[in-house]
Amino acid sequence: MANVTIRALAEIFYRASAERDVERAMSVIAEDVDWLVQGPVDVFPFLGQRHGKAAVREGYREIARKLEITGYDVEALLVDGDRAAALIRLSSIIRATGRVMSVRTSQFSRFRDGQIVEMRAVIDTYDMVEQTLGRSLGAARLDLEHVSVA
Amino acid sequence: MANVTIRALAEIFYRASAERDVERAMSVIAEDVDWLVQGPVDVFPFLGQRHGKAAVREGYREIARKLEITGYDVEALLVDGDRAAALIRLSSIIRATGRVMSVRTSQFSRFRDGQIVEMRAVIDTYDMVEQTLGRSLGAARLDLEHVSVA
Repeated sequence: MANVTIRALAEIFYRASAERDVERAMSVIAEDVDWLVQGPVDVFPFLGQRHGKAAVREGYREIARKLEITGYDVEALLVDGDRAAALIRLSSIIRATGRVMSVRTSQFSRFRDGQIVEMRAVIDTYDMVEQTLGRSLGAARLDLEHVSVA
Repeated sequence: MANVTIRALAEIFYRASAERDVERAMSVIAEDVDWLVQGPVDVFPFLGQRHGKAAVREGYREIARKLEITGYDVEALLVDGDRAAALIRLSSIIRATGRVMSVRTSQFSRFRDGQIVEMRAVIDTYDMVEQTLGRSLGAARLDLEHVSVA
């Protein structure tokens, strides 16, 4: 029973996310949520640690300012106990440049009293940065090749 | 019943992974596995797409050549239907430099006939590259700041 409920809540959250209905997605997020999207905060200010629903909402707004989301495809959604895990392909246009960005991300959430109290997200951030820049971060490759023969 | 079995198999796979018992982990992987760890293959040759168990085993060997794994902490493991999802904190020492690297990764697997036939992994790759280099990829930040005011 509890599982069915969490599955329904997770489906509401991801349907709302896919439809870019931020307020509906917010309805499933707890006031005191502990939210962490791993990634370079200095590059993408909408990443990183956020405490509380207001901070998460501001993160969503920042995303909407920077990116026009054109696709949100949930490739897998698992529910087990009080947790959900989703594998997502996110496609967007970077508003500042018009460049297309498509990245894979995963989200692990934990529910309590019908709301998300914890979120841990992992993104393929190197790919995200390269697509945003529109070029390879080739300097890193050269340095690593040097390192590997050191 | 099927779920219990997949849970047991997933637990075998992750216990073996945590214990760096590659052959035991391999016992849960199908011969024709479709394996994809998103990330910059030009930087880390053990990332990327691999077809078949032999290619995955070679990837594990490549990891062992480059990294001394010092910690493998499964922070969450979900099983649902024929799928499992794991959130992992991986700690290692980069053999070439002695630097410590700690990254979060997620793995989404699909089982068939008692073995993993599909794996999709996402890593916080930008952090992984910065930790490997031992410095910030600051050039990316500057370019993005320029982009955002363009």
